Amino acid sequence: MGIIVQKFGGTSVADSDKIKNVARAAIKEKENGNDVIVVVSAMGHTTDNLIKLAGEITSKPSAREMDMLLSTGEQISMSLLAMALNEMGHKAISLTGLQVGIKTEDCHMCARIIDIETTRVKKHLKEGNIVIVAGFQGVCKGNEITTLGRGGSDTTAVALACAFNAERCDIYSDVEGVYTADPRIIKTAQKLDKISYDEMLELARLGANVLHPRSVETAKLYNMKMRVRSSFKLDDLGTLIIGVEEMELNKPVTGIATDSSQLRIVICDIEDRPGNAAKLFNLLAEAGLSVDMIIQSYARTANNTNDIAFTIAKSDIDKFNSMKDKINSILKAGNIFIDEDIVKVSAVGAGMIDRPGIAAKMFDTLAAEEINIKMISTSEIKISCLVEKKYATSAAIALAHAFELDGAQIADVKGDLPVV
Amino acid sequence: MGIIVQKFGGTSVADSDKIKNVARAAIKEKENGNDVIVVVSAMGHTTDNLIKLAGEITSKPSAREMDMLLSTGEQISMSLLAMALNEMGHKAISLTGLQVGIKTEDCHMCARIIDIETTRVKKHLKEGNIVIVAGFQGVCKGNEITTLGRGGSDTTAVALACAFNAERCDIYSDVEGVYTADPRIIKTAQKLDKISYDEMLELARLGANVLHPRSVETAKLYNMKMRVRSSFKLDDLGTLIIGVEEMELNKPVTGIATDSSQLRIVICDIEDRPGNAAKLFNLLAEAGLSVDMIIQSYARTANNTNDIAFTIAKSDIDKFNSMKDKINSILKAGNIFIDEDIVKVSAVGAGMIDRPGIAAKMFDTLAAEEINIKMISTSEIKISCLVEKKYATSAAIALAHAFELDGAQIADVKGDLPVV
Repeated sequence: MGIIVQKFGGTSVADSDKIKNVARAAIKEKENGNDVIVVVSAMGHTTDNLIKLAGEITSKPSAREMDMLLSTGEQISMSLLAMALNEMGHKAISLTGLQVGIKTEDCHMCARIIDIETTRVKKHLKEGNIVIVAGFQGVCKGNEITTLGRGGSDTTAVALACAFNAERCDIYSDVEGVYTADPRIIKTAQKLDKISYDEMLELARLGANVLHPRSVETAKLYNMKMRVRSSFKLDDLGTLIIGVEEMELNKPVTGIATDSSQLRIVICDIEDRPGNAAKLFNLLAEAGLSVDMIIQSYARTANNTNDIAFTIAKSDIDKFNSMKDKINSILKAGNIFIDEDIVKVSAVGAGMIDRPGIAAKMFDTLAAEEINIKMISTSEIKISCLVEKKYATSAAIALAHAFELDGAQIADVKGDLPVV
Repeated sequence: MGIIVQKFGGTSVADSDKIKNVARAAIKEKENGNDVIVVVSAMGHTTDNLIKLAGEITSKPSAREMDMLLSTGEQISMSLLAMALNEMGHKAISLTGLQVGIKTEDCHMCARIIDIETTRVKKHLKEGNIVIVAGFQGVCKGNEITTLGRGGSDTTAVALACAFNAERCDIYSDVEGVYTADPRIIKTAQKLDKISYDEMLELARLGANVLHPRSVETAKLYNMKMRVRSSFKLDDLGTLIIGVEEMELNKPVTGIATDSSQLRIVICDIEDRPGNAAKLFNLLAEAGLSVDMIIQSYARTANNTNDIAFTIAKSDIDKFNSMKDKINSILKAGNIFIDEDIVKVSAVGAGMIDRPGIAAKMFDTLAAEEINIKMISTSEIKISCLVEKKYATSAAIALAHAFELDGAQIADVKGDLPVV
């Protein structure tokens, strides 16, 4: 008995039949004796269609009007879900971000939630309603509609769960949980029953494509239990995401992730002077570029210059190109090489803390497969290696096997590397 | 120099090109030195598509959730219009009913506007913005979203014009103005430069399909000038709607309208006792049925019973059928006949007040065409006759000719009777 927050993504509400299915999932929790708050995304391709419409009108829409436009998507799916619940004999009410009182920063398209009012939702829950809340949106001063940017609906759900001191926040989508490796690559990858916030954060950032890191960070901060589960298999409990202190750490590595969404840039012959690296990354930050892995080579004795290599998202390449001349003129660098033919393979596990030899085992495993490592980066619970893209699958399979994450045997993998 | 309110219907904002056209119309008024408030409807078939989606989920959606659903339509078109205006170099901001402060009754799907706050819109106008307001929607207590029902966007526009003491309220659509008769029937029907509120009201109620009577009633009450004009011919001034005191009345009849959206119901053998008619019409009102023409025959001496005939909208026939048994049991009536094969032909004109002989001329004209009149109703400025549907065109042509509304000559009319 408590409050359960459920969040359903775009594929889970893509048409009227799927919306009815979501209604059944909400009713199931309600009939378990819980109060239920449901957060919905926009239906399937609604957001894409709205963005396309805006694109027909202008290439540089105002962020405020984009928020006005895109926030309609959730309003449509939530009202339809309320109707479906009514039709099935349950009381339900849908609320916009404004009606709930999801207060955000005074900023459009990437606002952060700063406060959630609880009075109105509590009243509706007390009256026996299943309360449906528009994901992704909030309101700032002047009743201006804001949206939360990428991963917004997950964030809405977790923030609501925290604000209402919910038992749990269930994130429903078309995946059944968090796996030890990408099940599209490693056919015998196993679904994890539990994973810690930190492990999930690393996996989320690495493109495991299940949860947005913002929502996991919030859950970790408030120690809110999350579940990743399938909206098409309501009896499957999916994966529970909890604090590491609640977990038994059996294996050093919990999951293997591959990420082919990045490219590597190498800037050659930067003069080895203090401040040059800072200048470079300031220029990149100015262009709005998030840099992931960074390697600076040792200064070459001959001409006292460095090479700096780093990775950025492929989708940011235009931003980088627009900065290229500036980089050249300020840093007086040499050639700039752009390498798209890469994939980042990572091993993640809270169990690797204070357990030596994991990195060595990873490098050994890749070496045994004759896979050359181009870059390495590590965190307390993660080791990532950049390798040639063609090795994505074989690297993932070898690592899953080495770290005992692949169940019975390695499946025969065919087909192209999926973009994860 | 003043405030001009412009309203654009669904066909005027049906796609991105048409939205750009609307932007040009707004800019034109702005460049004339006026402050401009634009009211928009939902794009083309958006509302129909949303209603269809709701229909896939339930046959009896809650009115509150329908308002939540349908109010997204205007939010989409208004944000796109703001983007188009920005793209053309003009400041613009779109506002929901809530953001403006369009306060309505505490009621869904047919709320009436009770107050409009002017502070925020005035501020944006002063900053040089073209202000775009969502038509059809308002807000009641608890920030609940309401919609105004049929003709809602016209009503929003006129109410805003009144609240802001505008110079004029221009209603743009795909028609070029108000005609002396339906130009699809009478090819030489003439566009009126001016028409009085009362005449427009009668024509609007009769299905001239140009303006919703609610908006005309509001304009009349506040003596707000309206213009009906085409969004595809921006140089055409359309038809001005003003008070009768500002008009010269040359002809007794200003326009001829046909309306084939109704059907006639005859209830036979109702006992002729005081209160029976009241009982009947109370039952109909209870079912939410709006009755238009009513005729009660003289009591027949034989069995002291009456026949009562009346017309209702064809779209209300299900509501009537659901009441049939109740009517039979309470009134102990005889047969009930339903006649769909009718059309209402009306002559409207403020000039017929205190001018005898207009009704006689109308009946004579129809008789000369051997058209039998099934029912008659009159108001101060209108005479309506119910005739067999097949006579719709010939009756309209004959009357337009009799009252000198048809310009040079009667056009050759082919094709089916359009539903007007």
